[in-house]
Amino acid sequence: MTESLPRFSAAATRIAGEDAVVEILRLAERPGVISLAGGLPDPAVFQVEETRAAMERVLAEHASEALNYSPNPGVTALRELLAERMGEREGIPAHPDEILVVSGGVEGIRHALNGLCDPGDPLLVEDPTYLAALHIARELGLRPTPVASDSEGPIPEALDEVCDRLAGARLLYANPTFSNPTGRTWSRERRMRILEVCERRDVFVVEDHAYAELRYDGTPVPALKAIAPERVIFIHTFSKIFGPGLRLGWVAANPALVARFGLLKLGSDQCSGALVQRLAIAYAESGALDRQVRCSRALYRDKRDAMLGALEAGGSDSPLGLPSVRPEGGFFLWLDTAVDTEVLLPRAIEDHRVAFVAGAPFFADPESPPARTSLRLSFSHVPARDIPEAIRRLGASVGAAG
Amino acid sequence: MTESLPRFSAAATRIAGEDAVVEILRLAERPGVISLAGGLPDPAVFQVEETRAAMERVLAEHASEALNYSPNPGVTALRELLAERMGEREGIPAHPDEILVVSGGVEGIRHALNGLCDPGDPLLVEDPTYLAALHIARELGLRPTPVASDSEGPIPEALDEVCDRLAGARLLYANPTFSNPTGRTWSRERRMRILEVCERRDVFVVEDHAYAELRYDGTPVPALKAIAPERVIFIHTFSKIFGPGLRLGWVAANPALVARFGLLKLGSDQCSGALVQRLAIAYAESGALDRQVRCSRALYRDKRDAMLGALEAGGSDSPLGLPSVRPEGGFFLWLDTAVDTEVLLPRAIEDHRVAFVAGAPFFADPESPPARTSLRLSFSHVPARDIPEAIRRLGASVGAAG
Repeated sequence: MTESLPRFSAAATRIAGEDAVVEILRLAERPGVISLAGGLPDPAVFQVEETRAAMERVLAEHASEALNYSPNPGVTALRELLAERMGEREGIPAHPDEILVVSGGVEGIRHALNGLCDPGDPLLVEDPTYLAALHIARELGLRPTPVASDSEGPIPEALDEVCDRLAGARLLYANPTFSNPTGRTWSRERRMRILEVCERRDVFVVEDHAYAELRYDGTPVPALKAIAPERVIFIHTFSKIFGPGLRLGWVAANPALVARFGLLKLGSDQCSGALVQRLAIAYAESGALDRQVRCSRALYRDKRDAMLGALEAGGSDSPLGLPSVRPEGGFFLWLDTAVDTEVLLPRAIEDHRVAFVAGAPFFADPESPPARTSLRLSFSHVPARDIPEAIRRLGASVGAAG
Repeated sequence: MTESLPRFSAAATRIAGEDAVVEILRLAERPGVISLAGGLPDPAVFQVEETRAAMERVLAEHASEALNYSPNPGVTALRELLAERMGEREGIPAHPDEILVVSGGVEGIRHALNGLCDPGDPLLVEDPTYLAALHIARELGLRPTPVASDSEGPIPEALDEVCDRLAGARLLYANPTFSNPTGRTWSRERRMRILEVCERRDVFVVEDHAYAELRYDGTPVPALKAIAPERVIFIHTFSKIFGPGLRLGWVAANPALVARFGLLKLGSDQCSGALVQRLAIAYAESGALDRQVRCSRALYRDKRDAMLGALEAGGSDSPLGLPSVRPEGGFFLWLDTAVDTEVLLPRAIEDHRVAFVAGAPFFADPESPPARTSLRLSFSHVPARDIPEAIRRLGASVGAAG
């Protein structure tokens, strides 16, 4: 008997290839493999006792609300807290009506792209950029369109040129601070200039702020949202400052956008979980959130330094070389190699017991030359003691392939 | 200075009208108004102490996993538990590989519709049907296409006729047990006959099982999934058996569908929250889930009876009449009146301090005559002692409008 299966939609067909990434991440979890693949927090940063105490308070004081539906835009007290926190920590003046609570940053990116772009529209991106944004763009039938960059960020003239070429260019997705995957941070001056071009060209910016609170050194730069609030749809998440297991983030934008994204949310998950929203409130109010951010910075700084140190120790003989960006925060190092990293990866896992993420899925065109030869290393989750051995194995695998 | 706002996409424009529903639900929450509008659980069914104890165990035993990313298809132990529970309670043989954990039933409906239908495709529906399914269909540019029904469920000949007329009819969304909004349950024989037509016509069924565990009397009927497992994409949720505040549900379908829906999930929220998944496991394993279902049945049965009793007490003079369906479970009663219920609703809230949901948004064509004159009453959340007064106010408001 042949199995009857329905035909997939065009949207589902456009993302079918992503299966390979899922499969590779599964391989990376085999025992004995040191994984530098997933961008996960180190469980050592979780403040478990504070989390327990915060949950205890939620269930003692707010159980009826916490177990029931949340208002669609989010629990009011959380929207108030987030607006205030953005003002205090980021210099971004925000009103609670400008906040939409979402189930992680990806949901916010989805509503921004789906709410503001039609199939066939270009979506301006850095190249490489966050693969989930590209995934969503492909599902929606958008055309991810790279804007050329240098070490300071996207090049203003290149943005102008793309806008000349593509009349429909209306949205730029950016991860300007400790970017996933490159670790790069746009300079302050570059932020001003890019936002000037956006203003002149009537391009709006989706600013993904996921890693920005995790700065380990260097001089803080203002969020795009702080420079040009009306131009920017700001997306932040609790995933890197509390825990991804909450699935909790937020969008800060004009109230008219927040209202419409809320309607889109009615058709994605109706509302975000009231239980985790209440937990986030209690956790933040206890001071644990700020403590976790401080403790995360110290831990990840050491890991970044350990990984950079291991790469440097390889010396000029190493087939790995050094990352062109020394990240001042975030989770990632980005390397360009002389080999095809998608071909390398299964061999690295199988023969050398080390995993990474190949560069291709981070590029608008996964077949372009830098896409083929680059790779992302995450230093966030690997135990610090395993970092030198991981880099040694990675070097051996690239050497064997070269 | 005029405010600069980006232009909304066609998808976001198609759902812009839903703003009115959101606004009405807000009005319904004003003090002094008795609301029969929202389909919320009664907080009295929440087992707060058991929830607290389950969460305590999760954070004692699984904090590192619970606060971090979940595997995209869901925590393995939860998929195993759900597969086993479906077999035991529903007679549905399921393997964990056939389970995708999602963030509430709506997310499951979304991936099924988005994964299997293209813009312009018909989506077969009961009329009226669950408004969130219609909302998603509109956002995706599908054409909700009603199949005529009688008291037993959709009419097989009508389904055949629609399939003759529309070559692209490939998916039927159904809420066959204690339907939202009508409370109707398809008879066992009708289930067999509709599934025969689906098999012959190669139509797949999205079975929304949200209310099915809340049966108050009458004879249980098998889920569509139990009758024709390969034809049915089964969607269930913890919202009515544990709490909507978790945002947790699941899809049971062929593993190839589960894998593809999982890829779509990578672009909606990546994975569902590990914390609430672990909570659901601990809560179910403690026996609290089954206890809550039993306690919910008793509580809601009494409320249903109180509301039916209040309607009957109005007698033949009442402008309300009686529902054509006496529901054997679920949350809702469905009334047809002689007045335009969208016009009535603001007056009912303002002058009579009672709220309901007007029927129109549950219909494929919100302008059709039954759409204009019907309304949905929820008996789940209103305090039992308020039910007689709520029905008295509702009768007065309809009487004043007639």
